[in-house]
Amino acid sequence: MSRRKVYLEDIPLDEAWRRFIAAMESAGVWLPFPGEDVPLDKGLGRVTARPVWAALSSPGYHASAMDGYAVRSADTLGATETAPVRLKLGEQAQYIDTGDPLPAWADSVIMIEHTQLIGDEDIEIQASVAPWASVRPMGEDMVATELVLPANHVLKPVDLGAIAGCGHATVNVRRNPRIAIIPTGTELVTVEQVKLSGFESGDIIEYNSLVLAAQVREWGGEPTRYPIVPDDYERIKATVREAAAAHDLVLVNAGSSAGSEDFTARIVQELGTLLVHGVAVRPGHPVILGTVERRAKSEERGGDSLHTLRSSLLVPIIGVPGYPVSCALTGEIFVEPILSRWLGLPPREKPKMQATITRKLLSPMGEDEWVRVTVGRVGERTVAAPLSRGAGVVTSLVRADGIVRIPRFSEGVDAGQSVTVELYRDPSEIDRTIVHIGSHDLCLDLLAQFLADSGRRLTSANAGSLGGLVALRRGEAHLAGSHLLDPATGEYNVAYVKQYLPGVSVVLVTFVHREQGLIVAPGNPKGIKGVADLARPDVRYVNRQHGAGTRILLDYRLGQLGIAPEQVRGYQREEYTHLAVAAAVQSGVADCGLGIAAAARALNLDFIPLEQERYDLVIPRAHYESDLLRPLLDLIRGPEFKRAVSELAGYDAAHMGEIAAKL
Amino acid sequence: MSRRKVYLEDIPLDEAWRRFIAAMESAGVWLPFPGEDVPLDKGLGRVTARPVWAALSSPGYHASAMDGYAVRSADTLGATETAPVRLKLGEQAQYIDTGDPLPAWADSVIMIEHTQLIGDEDIEIQASVAPWASVRPMGEDMVATELVLPANHVLKPVDLGAIAGCGHATVNVRRNPRIAIIPTGTELVTVEQVKLSGFESGDIIEYNSLVLAAQVREWGGEPTRYPIVPDDYERIKATVREAAAAHDLVLVNAGSSAGSEDFTARIVQELGTLLVHGVAVRPGHPVILGTVERRAKSEERGGDSLHTLRSSLLVPIIGVPGYPVSCALTGEIFVEPILSRWLGLPPREKPKMQATITRKLLSPMGEDEWVRVTVGRVGERTVAAPLSRGAGVVTSLVRADGIVRIPRFSEGVDAGQSVTVELYRDPSEIDRTIVHIGSHDLCLDLLAQFLADSGRRLTSANAGSLGGLVALRRGEAHLAGSHLLDPATGEYNVAYVKQYLPGVSVVLVTFVHREQGLIVAPGNPKGIKGVADLARPDVRYVNRQHGAGTRILLDYRLGQLGIAPEQVRGYQREEYTHLAVAAAVQSGVADCGLGIAAAARALNLDFIPLEQERYDLVIPRAHYESDLLRPLLDLIRGPEFKRAVSELAGYDAAHMGEIAAKL
Repeated sequence: MSRRKVYLEDIPLDEAWRRFIAAMESAGVWLPFPGEDVPLDKGLGRVTARPVWAALSSPGYHASAMDGYAVRSADTLGATETAPVRLKLGEQAQYIDTGDPLPAWADSVIMIEHTQLIGDEDIEIQASVAPWASVRPMGEDMVATELVLPANHVLKPVDLGAIAGCGHATVNVRRNPRIAIIPTGTELVTVEQVKLSGFESGDIIEYNSLVLAAQVREWGGEPTRYPIVPDDYERIKATVREAAAAHDLVLVNAGSSAGSEDFTARIVQELGTLLVHGVAVRPGHPVILGTVERRAKSEERGGDSLHTLRSSLLVPIIGVPGYPVSCALTGEIFVEPILSRWLGLPPREKPKMQATITRKLLSPMGEDEWVRVTVGRVGERTVAAPLSRGAGVVTSLVRADGIVRIPRFSEGVDAGQSVTVELYRDPSEIDRTIVHIGSHDLCLDLLAQFLADSGRRLTSANAGSLGGLVALRRGEAHLAGSHLLDPATGEYNVAYVKQYLPGVSVVLVTFVHREQGLIVAPGNPKGIKGVADLARPDVRYVNRQHGAGTRILLDYRLGQLGIAPEQVRGYQREEYTHLAVAAAVQSGVADCGLGIAAAARALNLDFIPLEQERYDLVIPRAHYESDLLRPLLDLIRGPEFKRAVSELAGYDAAHMGEIAAKL
Repeated sequence: MSRRKVYLEDIPLDEAWRRFIAAMESAGVWLPFPGEDVPLDKGLGRVTARPVWAALSSPGYHASAMDGYAVRSADTLGATETAPVRLKLGEQAQYIDTGDPLPAWADSVIMIEHTQLIGDEDIEIQASVAPWASVRPMGEDMVATELVLPANHVLKPVDLGAIAGCGHATVNVRRNPRIAIIPTGTELVTVEQVKLSGFESGDIIEYNSLVLAAQVREWGGEPTRYPIVPDDYERIKATVREAAAAHDLVLVNAGSSAGSEDFTARIVQELGTLLVHGVAVRPGHPVILGTVERRAKSEERGGDSLHTLRSSLLVPIIGVPGYPVSCALTGEIFVEPILSRWLGLPPREKPKMQATITRKLLSPMGEDEWVRVTVGRVGERTVAAPLSRGAGVVTSLVRADGIVRIPRFSEGVDAGQSVTVELYRDPSEIDRTIVHIGSHDLCLDLLAQFLADSGRRLTSANAGSLGGLVALRRGEAHLAGSHLLDPATGEYNVAYVKQYLPGVSVVLVTFVHREQGLIVAPGNPKGIKGVADLARPDVRYVNRQHGAGTRILLDYRLGQLGIAPEQVRGYQREEYTHLAVAAAVQSGVADCGLGIAAAARALNLDFIPLEQERYDLVIPRAHYESDLLRPLLDLIRGPEFKRAVSELAGYDAAHMGEIAAKL
């Protein structure tokens, strides 16, 4: 079997938007939604569709602001400590609680603290009071007919109080936009199905609809998640038609590209107008924008939902790309502004921050690119480290602190250049972030876990031991995990730190000792005993990336045995973490890889121990002494975290927290 | 009748917290809550109680990253444009869709664009491919056993996708804290009752429980609002006991002071321990902190809710003060940190901003004070303008952009001094805020309304016409509404601008012409005909504040008639807005006040027209020409807003937008 490729369009983002908005405008669906009355206890976070004018004044009468006595101010004139004035209870003074209405004859209140009861019939005062003293005049807070809240306002808790306080039991808020989300694809399975029946090769767990639904909810819409529709032209078309009848916007997930089973574009063409097929953005290129007709057939169904929808006969539709990162970014780029518009709000803006980019980013030729980054403050600088650019790596969005947009046809960005980051987090979270770049170790995940309790975030980028030292030199990280064996001395890290961080005052803190060895399939089917076996033609190895301590260790041992890298099959295949090496062995792609015991254990693989190595945290002294890192140092020197690490296979925490060297 | 005052304590805030936390710690209720499993589509915004480790790898197999042909890379070696290589379909090449599993015999994928179909049995390629090209290796995104999300993490949309993607159908999140909210007070009515039966003097609309419930919901808790309990010691006590049996925290609203019907402190003492009665903060002094016992009796009820609650026998309780601002701030100060703690989160931090305060704030002696402010950027400066300090003025919180804390026993803050504002809004909203300080006019509310559509916020502080000019001189506002009649020339504003803003380049833009006159009760019972009548001993006047254009007008007319201010009864009683003047007349406190027709009409009062005046917007040229103000100028020069103003009683919009003078 063979197929032909149909090419997508390359419409620039702003041109795509222009077309889409123009079509929605002429269809009358690019307007804020009408309002509906909801009880106040359902109003939180909703958006006012009309201004709120006070129906009643508040207070609704002249109210006492204190516990005390209502009086006529004129009666108090002349009262002093030496010439106190007596007022007759019932005639000139009347007890009043805070909030009580002022009697018609009174014009002020004397605090009870400033009165003296004389017998049963009089009070005595030693100072006069001004008219309206200790009185909250009617309308002090709100005067009937006054503007209390504008339209297009997101209701906060106190707003609800003010609306009730001026006499309204309900508030008119914009109807929630209803968004249909249709996942399509024969290969898709739900995670619930996987839990029941197990996972099979070729299964793809469908979670884009979950992400889109949560985005829609977060942005004030009401999502409907349809069940998965297989790649069947007629079934998808029928579902789109049904969804369009009862929703304000239809999202069809995947099938938006131009492959053999990508039906969305054709369906949009048949049911309405295809406006855009392919937007010049990355990730997220295969986006479809269009409108579909709300058919008479479905209108006949009548019922509640149609009442408010019938006004327009066209429904916007978006074909959302299938890769999870593309999908989520399509939500942010296209769905969010539509929801904001319908709710009467300006498009959401993420907080922005200037940061120094840590890696060169090539310019994507014809596409705007969104690069996910982690962000941290290291000393005086704010640094942004790019994460995986793969559109299939959803964890790159999970871990991202923000995104950087690289415009199409730009020069790209050089390492060290300043970029604008749109933040997914509050800037205050960035301030309490400890940035680790260096060798990957499972215990760092555990440390991140423990640290969260002390209000610190630990972000960790796996760049290998040498990569970590380079990052420290560039001022891009607070600390670097390192396990670099010096072949000359048999000592760990010291020689490398001297070489890579000359003139920098550094503290080496021992983190863990851990067992390195060969990770092999269960039962060790190829009978691998040690590094010498890697030269065997039937043994496929999986390597770590250049600069990783584990790779340096391998090279050292190969050299001792006189084995050239070319003799090792798979020497070129690089992975960035121990777990990825173990995964390669588990999947059968490789027969073995050098790595730590914990990674083998995690994936139920066998492990041939070779040696114990020291893994240090390399910390420039300025950071070592900072407030930011104190909780981290306290943790690794306390008993609780040590105990947790000791329980992991292949780890020795006996020397954790000790200073291995000060350089 | 007469009463004695019991004095409250004055416990400093941090000492109050220390006592409260110590009591909760020893009761075992100062710990993050245990988790519960929820389906992923209910997980948005919840907080992970445990780390999420990947159950499956993603992808779960080596997957094609492209539509194309699966091949062995070795078979493609040597292919070039001039020496293409043919691969046999079925044996050396197999069509593969994006996401499909790589066949076991293949190790890479050639994109379909780079192949040429030759007959039915072969494809031809003109370049070799590297091993693993266009393949997403198993575990590229997540490797089984890897840490995907830490505990104590607020779940975002993409997080839910990642959790599903690595094989989990549920997520373990912290149980929502259950908060009981008990409104107490015989004088309280619900707004629903008022809608049904009308408002009576002495009624206070109960909305604090609505605000507290919305706050609790916003902070991740589950509120229970109890019906209003009258001031009856036994009934309140019974309700507290019942609430403590089924909730994690009990809030009793009002009755927390030391007045005759303030029962909360005694009830806490009887049911448990009173820790604090009175915290040295303003607003919010009469706060009660304590713990009450969860009684055996209620435990016998069994059922679901008790299952998780039984662990502790003590329940924290807060007596929340009754004034609405005190109540809402008590929520922020005491309730929010408890909820965050229980959810495993750090206390919420508001975004902070430095700003110049526009008015002197005296130091409160023994209390920390929270001052509500509006914030705007005027030129290079960020200015914070204090709002009403009244604890009863909930609109001061509604309108606040942030709060400024003035520490107890401090020197206070001078006008022009820099302060730290904790913001209720996103800083980006501050950037698009137009700051008006000056004379109040109803059309400004309408303008704010129209402006919202163009992405601008208009905040308006009523300082009177002269106050506005002074604010412009100090660089505290972008524009000032002004209607200052020069007695010498009969001209509006020009002379005052020259006097108050010497050397500043200013544009005077006419906003409206409006009718000034005397606002009187319906039917004009005192038969008032004009300003001359204000000298009558039976006429009570209500005045505007010093510096208001309306007051200057009055003084001018009084002078013409030879009437001294002392002859006008009520000349000293000052209100800050036309509506407040009208409200004073409506309530019967005064017989008349000078003001605009629209204010009289709004409250169904009669109006005796005296003259038409010009109300200008005074705008320094730098702001006049700024992007920020452009939408405002466009609006007042367009037809839509003019039409809306013309429809208001007493307004003439014919000259709106015209430049009256450039100075």
